[in-house]
Amino acid sequence: MFKHDVFYRVRYADTDQMRFMYYGNYARLYEIGRVESLRTLGCHYAELEKAGIWMPVLDLQSRYMKPAFYDDELRIETRILSIPTTRLFFEYEISRAGGEVIHQAKTTLVFLSSEKGRPCRAPDRLQAALSPFFSV
Amino acid sequence: MFKHDVFYRVRYADTDQMRFMYYGNYARLYEIGRVESLRTLGCHYAELEKAGIWMPVLDLQSRYMKPAFYDDELRIETRILSIPTTRLFFEYEISRAGGEVIHQAKTTLVFLSSEKGRPCRAPDRLQAALSPFFSV
Amino acid sequence: MFKHDVFYRVRYADTDQMRFMYYGNYARLYEIGRVESLRTLGCHYAELEKAGIWMPVLDLQSRYMKPAFYDDELRIETRILSIPTTRLFFEYEISRAGGEVIHQAKTTLVFLSSEKGRPCRAPDRLQAALSPFFSV
Amino acid sequence: MFKHDVFYRVRYADTDQMRFMYYGNYARLYEIGRVESLRTLGCHYAELEKAGIWMPVLDLQSRYMKPAFYDDELRIETRILSIPTTRLFFEYEISRAGGEVIHQAKTTLVFLSSEKGRPCRAPDRLQAALSPFFSV
Repeated sequence: MFKHDVFYRVRYADTDQMRFMYYGNYARLYEIGRVESLRTLGCHYAELEKAGIWMPVLDLQSRYMKPAFYDDELRIETRILSIPTTRLFFEYEISRAGGEVIHQAKTTLVFLSSEKGRPCRAPDRLQAALSPFFSV
Repeated sequence: MFKHDVFYRVRYADTDQMRFMYYGNYARLYEIGRVESLRTLGCHYAELEKAGIWMPVLDLQSRYMKPAFYDDELRIETRILSIPTTRLFFEYEISRAGGEVIHQAKTTLVFLSSEKGRPCRAPDRLQAALSPFFSV
Repeated sequence: MFKHDVFYRVRYADTDQMRFMYYGNYARLYEIGRVESLRTLGCHYAELEKAGIWMPVLDLQSRYMKPAFYDDELRIETRILSIPTTRLFFEYEISRAGGEVIHQAKTTLVFLSSEKGRPCRAPDRLQAALSPFFSV
Repeated sequence: MFKHDVFYRVRYADTDQMRFMYYGNYARLYEIGRVESLRTLGCHYAELEKAGIWMPVLDLQSRYMKPAFYDDELRIETRILSIPTTRLFFEYEISRAGGEVIHQAKTTLVFLSSEKGRPCRAPDRLQAALSPFFSV
């Protein structure tokens, strides 16, 4: 398994009048988790797009266990559970820094050739970068 | 079953550089579906909050079947599948107006006493308004 | 002068923990004002882009007079003050429906050839559609 | 004058279909500039609110000079131009890290007693923390 941590400060822009982080704004956190975990693997999403690969989200599952509040420093733990072929599965666990888990989520992304508009294989470089984490 | 339709125009603010509606912005559509469907039942969420009832989202499942594009006129069909007790289950089906289904989602919300910070029963008025749709 | 009204319901997604509409979310209202006023003039922004014209915002001035609250029905009055050549000047006045003005703003947009990446003239059709409102 | 720098990575959530950062999303950057500059002065906005002081935005001026793109690392330079009494004036200059200035903005905020709903004086602590930067 591959794991990665990144931190996020909850902003006023993220809150709603319940004083919670608005439920739709967690999608930004997953995005940050995905992109920064791929970056540590040497896989820059901006370059992937330039090379003609898009990675739209196919599905999303979110579990809101406790609210996130303004100015909370959140830890986003992102996990990749298998070496991707045409799809990439991420899991996310969000906790208050040094504290309890408040949120869990999963997403499926597909590798898409932006030219053909069709699914394509994961880039070799990403598969190679991930393989050490999954070797027997 | 209770069903409700409301329409939503995709704005530039909703798009991302893939030219798709950003995956996190669908949460706004579900919110509109929920609130406007409850309004037709005579249940105004703003009043509910004033009466001390909050309805945070507990979980969310989204399935992105086809992208939504800028200026698309979307139909949000919202369904309530059972008379709520302490939780309220919504399902959403989003389609381009007059066209194909592009997105499906489900959310669970809990009725929460904002004073006690604890789950509470659905308002009688909401249960009464929904009962005709579920009578045998 | 050309004037146009459109209505907007404040959503939970728009609020912040002060219970106000977050100051950055007014940009969505101006966008709705612009796009819907142009639509009534027969000028669809989605088609403009397909014809190779972009309209990025060059500057913005906002005056927050009173807060907008959750579920407020806002009236967005959009004004075009002159027939555009390479730039388009909009003014916005936002009020609670049937009530007081709570917000004022101005934006300048430029017509940009998306191919050349350079400013270009306003489409003839838009100039023609606006001319009756500015005839002597 | 007091100056402060903080960095921000442009996210997919921030982009629009022009491939630019959406004009309304800069408000988040100003917020980050404000809050992080105040934090370095020992003034935590979250604590201010708990002490009954809100700081809503009264006005905003933005100048979009060049677009910000996906994955750009932006430098937000925040300046406080005078010791606040009942209002706090911020200026922002946003540049690509190590590069050109792409955006400038100004905001006015007011100190508001959340209990009385009326303007109040800036906290002594903030005035004291700022005074070394403005001594003759």
